[in-house]
Amino acid sequence: MSTGDGTDRKVTFRGIDFESLDVRQFLDNVQTLIVDDVLVRSTRRENKVINFRDPVELQELLDLTISPDGAKHDTLVEACKNVIEYSAKTGHPRFFNQLYSGLNAYGLAGSWLADSLNTNGYTFEASPVFVIMELSLLQKICGILGYENGDGVFCPGGSFSNIMAMHLARYKVAPEAHYSLVKGAMFLGMGLDSVVRVTTDERGKMKPEVLEARIQEDLKMGHLPAMVMATAGTTVLGAYDLLEALADVCDRYGVWLHCDACWGGGALLSNKHRHLMAAVHRTHSLAWNFHKMSGAPLQSAAFLVNEKGLMEECNQFKAEYLFQPDKFYDTSYDIGDKTVQCGRKVDSLKLWLLWKAVGDAGMAAVVDNCFENAQYLAEKMKQTDGFRLVIPEFECANVCFWYIPESLRGQEETPEWWQKISKVGPAIKERMVREGSMMMGFTPLTCKGHVNFFRMILANAKSDRTDMDFVVSEIDRLGKDL
Amino acid sequence: MSTGDGTDRKVTFRGIDFESLDVRQFLDNVQTLIVDDVLVRSTRRENKVINFRDPVELQELLDLTISPDGAKHDTLVEACKNVIEYSAKTGHPRFFNQLYSGLNAYGLAGSWLADSLNTNGYTFEASPVFVIMELSLLQKICGILGYENGDGVFCPGGSFSNIMAMHLARYKVAPEAHYSLVKGAMFLGMGLDSVVRVTTDERGKMKPEVLEARIQEDLKMGHLPAMVMATAGTTVLGAYDLLEALADVCDRYGVWLHCDACWGGGALLSNKHRHLMAAVHRTHSLAWNFHKMSGAPLQSAAFLVNEKGLMEECNQFKAEYLFQPDKFYDTSYDIGDKTVQCGRKVDSLKLWLLWKAVGDAGMAAVVDNCFENAQYLAEKMKQTDGFRLVIPEFECANVCFWYIPESLRGQEETPEWWQKISKVGPAIKERMVREGSMMMGFTPLTCKGHVNFFRMILANAKSDRTDMDFVVSEIDRLGKDL
Repeated sequence: MSTGDGTDRKVTFRGIDFESLDVRQFLDNVQTLIVDDVLVRSTRRENKVINFRDPVELQELLDLTISPDGAKHDTLVEACKNVIEYSAKTGHPRFFNQLYSGLNAYGLAGSWLADSLNTNGYTFEASPVFVIMELSLLQKICGILGYENGDGVFCPGGSFSNIMAMHLARYKVAPEAHYSLVKGAMFLGMGLDSVVRVTTDERGKMKPEVLEARIQEDLKMGHLPAMVMATAGTTVLGAYDLLEALADVCDRYGVWLHCDACWGGGALLSNKHRHLMAAVHRTHSLAWNFHKMSGAPLQSAAFLVNEKGLMEECNQFKAEYLFQPDKFYDTSYDIGDKTVQCGRKVDSLKLWLLWKAVGDAGMAAVVDNCFENAQYLAEKMKQTDGFRLVIPEFECANVCFWYIPESLRGQEETPEWWQKISKVGPAIKERMVREGSMMMGFTPLTCKGHVNFFRMILANAKSDRTDMDFVVSEIDRLGKDL
Repeated sequence: MSTGDGTDRKVTFRGIDFESLDVRQFLDNVQTLIVDDVLVRSTRRENKVINFRDPVELQELLDLTISPDGAKHDTLVEACKNVIEYSAKTGHPRFFNQLYSGLNAYGLAGSWLADSLNTNGYTFEASPVFVIMELSLLQKICGILGYENGDGVFCPGGSFSNIMAMHLARYKVAPEAHYSLVKGAMFLGMGLDSVVRVTTDERGKMKPEVLEARIQEDLKMGHLPAMVMATAGTTVLGAYDLLEALADVCDRYGVWLHCDACWGGGALLSNKHRHLMAAVHRTHSLAWNFHKMSGAPLQSAAFLVNEKGLMEECNQFKAEYLFQPDKFYDTSYDIGDKTVQCGRKVDSLKLWLLWKAVGDAGMAAVVDNCFENAQYLAEKMKQTDGFRLVIPEFECANVCFWYIPESLRGQEETPEWWQKISKVGPAIKERMVREGSMMMGFTPLTCKGHVNFFRMILANAKSDRTDMDFVVSEIDRLGKDL
């Protein structure tokens, strides 16, 4: 490298010589930390789900400064230890806080390897193996859906998948669901008014007759309904929309039916629960996050469309520097133009390696376990004082419940009483997180008039009945005196 | 787990017991494969950059089938070996094919650790460490940009960042540039007609006077120009737009100035090259992919805005199940509503760990090396028969050149001659890839009337002058007889 004074000097770039003992030692240390502290220690029941610190305190605990000359390996390993110490342990069998939980060695190994092969999924030349692998996986998934003319792409998350669906639907006609629909409408320039909310029943399922009435209304007003977004497993209540009935309505009016199965899609892997998504083959597109119920690492978000070629037709730009037609191989394998992204992480390997390892039966077993734990917990709550389910007969792996502290039991349930109940969730949550004994979310559901309740998500293959028993006794312990 | 017949049986889920010797052994095998085969073997000059197989052949070589009962560890490890064998070695010092190249132990360790902690970056409770870390990194980057009221978010890639900018710009009022602009306009529902192309000079720099004339034209027609997209380091020619002059124009008309610095932003890390982006503090937003010139792993795509609060104002939806206002901590640390994504990969750790390790000086050294290699190569090509640079005096780390085989030298350069030259790139590329000796792209540049030429990208900290010497002799060897 030139110093500018005519002489050459050799600059050693740190971290790029993988044959040096020093770098090998560092990587070895980090790999050991990952295995010992993240995979083993963080998933043991006797350890905390989180060592919580308030933001300002945490900022002081972490030495985030970057110096001109860099840091020594000891400092870096120490930093990694801190990162682990104060992170939420999402692999812990008592992490019920989000729609993902749990760690799987095969999925993780796939993530590490894909990271290390560091490439983009857009062309066959940059990603020969991963293009083939993604196409193969998508074909398998389309088979599960019953998409006979199916295609797809992996997206950076479910919101992105839903926005992709809206984009395709609009392209086709000229234009309780997840909030990505509203964000997406703004993003895509449709405006908020273009999102019509269809009433759901008390379990959160869209009412097909209301949908039909709204479509007729829209048509009368000269509007063109572009897409119906059904949900398989809503975020909070876990409701499965009746796809058959919705498909009938959509078919009658020629409207695109997209299914947000990001969370509940896992049911399709199980012979026991597949019926929840009967008629899924009649949807036009579907979003399915395998990093949720199916236990793959973040992010494994598949977007599927039952119309080959449509994604390219809608999105392609054929950037001449990337998608040269005069390449020497079959350029139909340059799949980057199916989406609006250019560079795109390789998300196929982690899911593929997991699926390959555990097989269809293994994937189904994880899903069955989620559903089974949820039902076991619900039964237990029905039999325990102080617990009340929001939806007593639910279908998915969300358990939504209020906890009623002793001081509030047996009273008339006036608005004031509910007001008090609404403060119970946040209070218990604070105690729970500060102790680190488990993690679950609370939320109100304004559209149903529900004040704050706990939403417990079963997504972790490691969670079992002992954890469900623990949840009941722990909530009781934390909230009894409120 | 219930079998449905009233008895309970214990199902063992594969890959989740990290204390089992079997799982530990598997992970150990994969980690060893990664270190030995990806990091060490794939980055040695004497090894191939790619072991290329045509798509159909590759499909047969890879056993992608998934069985009902899963696969044994031996099979999985064998599969991982195949994945490595047939993947492009983007860490190899002779991989010049994309805007990213090279591997760094620190960045990689950060990727592995973030993967293993498997969480989303949307709320403080799910990602306490990574929220703080992302905010800290963004602050540092804003400091480099001179954004005094800066904020930002990590995005899944540069195209997404550019679309985010368009979304903000439209929200504020209402684009040679990257093709994401056109894709984005369609995506955002602006329509293709809303993208106005501004002529560039022969080096690919936008002409400020043409920009001004087009803005005036638009205004006369009653159109509202929403955003100007400048580029710092265009994808093909590596052109740096004159930010100062463009900012003057934008200021005069109150137009949002976004800078796509995805590739060329690295210059800001170097005292030697920072001048290329003078006046960057006057842009309103900027996209910078640290996984390109700066050597972080994919994806490290920062999107920065010089207006605090704007991203939330434009994007927030306050989903009640995720962003509850009655949490017990300061919910300004729940940063998920800054973007249209819901779940979002943690991209901060890999960049942070790399930067922390090598320091500001180490980051600058990598950038300087890219620029220096490019200049060395260009000088060498100027002195070598058969090589012709597309832009003899370029500024970035793209070296664009035609190779003229002996049979075509010294002839009149008629359209027919150029037609023959256009076939040289693809022909050499095929030989190059089939031999696996190196990888670089070719592309035409229709807007400048250029037929296929090679675009060589210098992004790898491991590439040095011996590699540049190799490029010249190898192209000559591969193409001499054409």
